[in-house]
Amino acid sequence: MTTLPLVAPARGFTLAEYEYRTQQLQQHMRLKQIDAVFFTTEPEFRYFSGFKSQFWESPTRPWFLVAPAEGKPIAVVPEIGVAGFDLTWIDDVRSWPSPRPEDDGISLLAATLVEVSTRYRRTGAMLGPETSLRMPAANFAMLQKVLAHHELVDASLMMREIRSIKSLAEIDKIRFACQVAAAGFDYLRHHLAIGMTERQACKAMHLEMLRLGADNCPYLISASGQGGYDNIIMGPTDRALVEGDVLIIDTGANFDGYFSDFDRNYAFGYAAEDTVQAYDAVYAATEAGLRAAAPGSTTGDVWQAMWSVLEKAGALGNDVGRMGHGLGMQLTEWPSHVPNGDVVLKPGMVLTLEPGMAFAPNRMMVHEDNIVITETGCELLHERTWQQMPLIT
Amino acid sequence: MTTLPLVAPARGFTLAEYEYRTQQLQQHMRLKQIDAVFFTTEPEFRYFSGFKSQFWESPTRPWFLVAPAEGKPIAVVPEIGVAGFDLTWIDDVRSWPSPRPEDDGISLLAATLVEVSTRYRRTGAMLGPETSLRMPAANFAMLQKVLAHHELVDASLMMREIRSIKSLAEIDKIRFACQVAAAGFDYLRHHLAIGMTERQACKAMHLEMLRLGADNCPYLISASGQGGYDNIIMGPTDRALVEGDVLIIDTGANFDGYFSDFDRNYAFGYAAEDTVQAYDAVYAATEAGLRAAAPGSTTGDVWQAMWSVLEKAGALGNDVGRMGHGLGMQLTEWPSHVPNGDVVLKPGMVLTLEPGMAFAPNRMMVHEDNIVITETGCELLHERTWQQMPLIT
Repeated sequence: MTTLPLVAPARGFTLAEYEYRTQQLQQHMRLKQIDAVFFTTEPEFRYFSGFKSQFWESPTRPWFLVAPAEGKPIAVVPEIGVAGFDLTWIDDVRSWPSPRPEDDGISLLAATLVEVSTRYRRTGAMLGPETSLRMPAANFAMLQKVLAHHELVDASLMMREIRSIKSLAEIDKIRFACQVAAAGFDYLRHHLAIGMTERQACKAMHLEMLRLGADNCPYLISASGQGGYDNIIMGPTDRALVEGDVLIIDTGANFDGYFSDFDRNYAFGYAAEDTVQAYDAVYAATEAGLRAAAPGSTTGDVWQAMWSVLEKAGALGNDVGRMGHGLGMQLTEWPSHVPNGDVVLKPGMVLTLEPGMAFAPNRMMVHEDNIVITETGCELLHERTWQQMPLIT
Repeated sequence: MTTLPLVAPARGFTLAEYEYRTQQLQQHMRLKQIDAVFFTTEPEFRYFSGFKSQFWESPTRPWFLVAPAEGKPIAVVPEIGVAGFDLTWIDDVRSWPSPRPEDDGISLLAATLVEVSTRYRRTGAMLGPETSLRMPAANFAMLQKVLAHHELVDASLMMREIRSIKSLAEIDKIRFACQVAAAGFDYLRHHLAIGMTERQACKAMHLEMLRLGADNCPYLISASGQGGYDNIIMGPTDRALVEGDVLIIDTGANFDGYFSDFDRNYAFGYAAEDTVQAYDAVYAATEAGLRAAAPGSTTGDVWQAMWSVLEKAGALGNDVGRMGHGLGMQLTEWPSHVPNGDVVLKPGMVLTLEPGMAFAPNRMMVHEDNIVITETGCELLHERTWQQMPLIT
């Protein structure tokens, strides 16, 4: 068990980090001849502005951040949000009284975009894979009409390039979130018991992670069943754990806006032979992934390294659709480890390795670990999972 | 302090409730001559399908639910989600291997919509105020092209009508979330101390609410300052509470997918005279709101009843933009208490009353309570806040 108290890193980021992020975006914008990019979603808004609020939980009002070709981003936000910008590096904060359904910031956003889009009349927005626009679709259509003389271009591909390389300060936050989750899993190993429900197990871990320093834990799922489980995205349920069960818990703890995302498996009473074999195979697949994940390798190489091991072990399939992904301000980020994936790994990328397989009908085994790509290979951000499947008795 | 253990209501809903919800939607669809409505966001997806997963935290994959003119909804979902539908009343689950950026469910969704849209060729989607489409904007544009011979119409106005009236089972869940939060606030009254930071206060309450039965607490903010605070959507910060401070905590605890959303104020050491006056005025404004909130009244009536009290007390303004809103599967839902609001209150609506004002430069006082509209008036869903501002010494 973890006995040393975990030490949380500093909150927030330096001014220099926000300047660097913005300059990186502006470099991409110059190459693509884009005058301005606007953002509507929390991670991008926070990434460039430093504005961090739980108020995004309320879907009522849209929020906009405009990044011009030069200078600081401009916030175009509901009046209720203005005071919060005192804590950020943003100087230009424009607001309207919201909610105002007939024009919830659209004319103000359009005017701001027109004001800063003098050169190419090309406006960037997040339109591509793994994104969505957090604004009413009818308002987006209205905006497109107002900006009919501007070309709207996708900014999501440049954003994923920028955000996929984490700074040292970002990595520290993710590492702490990982260590809190690892300590939570260790705690659970000593506090699980036959007869407990999945929900009780998750609640115990939830409380422990908060005590250890997580700000919150937006993702904490479990699945269980005799010798394996049939999904990894539902639960926890009120199912009581009995002898012969395998329990998986997968969690995304969050510290200062950065996630961990990994899982652990526990056997109850005893573990069937094929379950142990599956655990060992998936453990070995992660080892292969750890060897493959290095600068210059591709996401396809990492996938292939892990899948080869699982295939040899008799995997029946994998309906997760990938075996790991980026990680940071969001629980899952670009890129994905997929067959033939051609994204080249670079130092600073934070990724999950998530080998998994169905090894019998309705029985899966999935492991997940979090790594950062270094100059020479990769580094685990938390203690490696147990080489033998732990037995709860 | 609360001494009796809180008893959580049953989880989930009856089959009859899902049937009723779907029939209600289908009635609206008939009136509007809509063949099918598709949903992309978690609350609507869960409302009609009963599919409840924390996996929406991952932005990678879109999920679609199609409600045809007759019969059960159809799920069009990533393969990773299929097993989870065993727990729902949905029979028709169509899936694709996701992530697949080149066609992440769009052709499957389009085919499904075409299949069920035989009569009017009018397809509904959530396009209006307080909504967004959780799918890449480029994919939505692609879908619109594929469905060029179908008319796309807004379904958000019918949805807010349907969802604004809560069933008894929904009200029970919200009431429990409220009681947990109220007990958390009571706990805090006895555990706050001068010198504590906002973050420590929020963490203590967070842990207590989880212990009391909240599943999680996606919204838990605080603000503090000498004699008042300047915002209600940021924090908690590491600011240590000193004599003369007022601390507000506003929280949305969640049980089985339903929110509470209310706040409490605490004075540290002493309370300045104008602070006490502001507290009393906002308390009285809530009383006026409680009298005004009844079937047949409008959201404007409720706003006016509360604002009259605050105006008389010398309110300098209110930049929140409204004084309360709907509440349920989301922290904030339609409708809003706004000046001249014309939404007529009906039994079963769950609402917040949120009178607030700036009473001095950079000093606000805001109260919030949660109610349900009954046949004859309204009912508080938790203990009324303290008539006198509590003093932490």
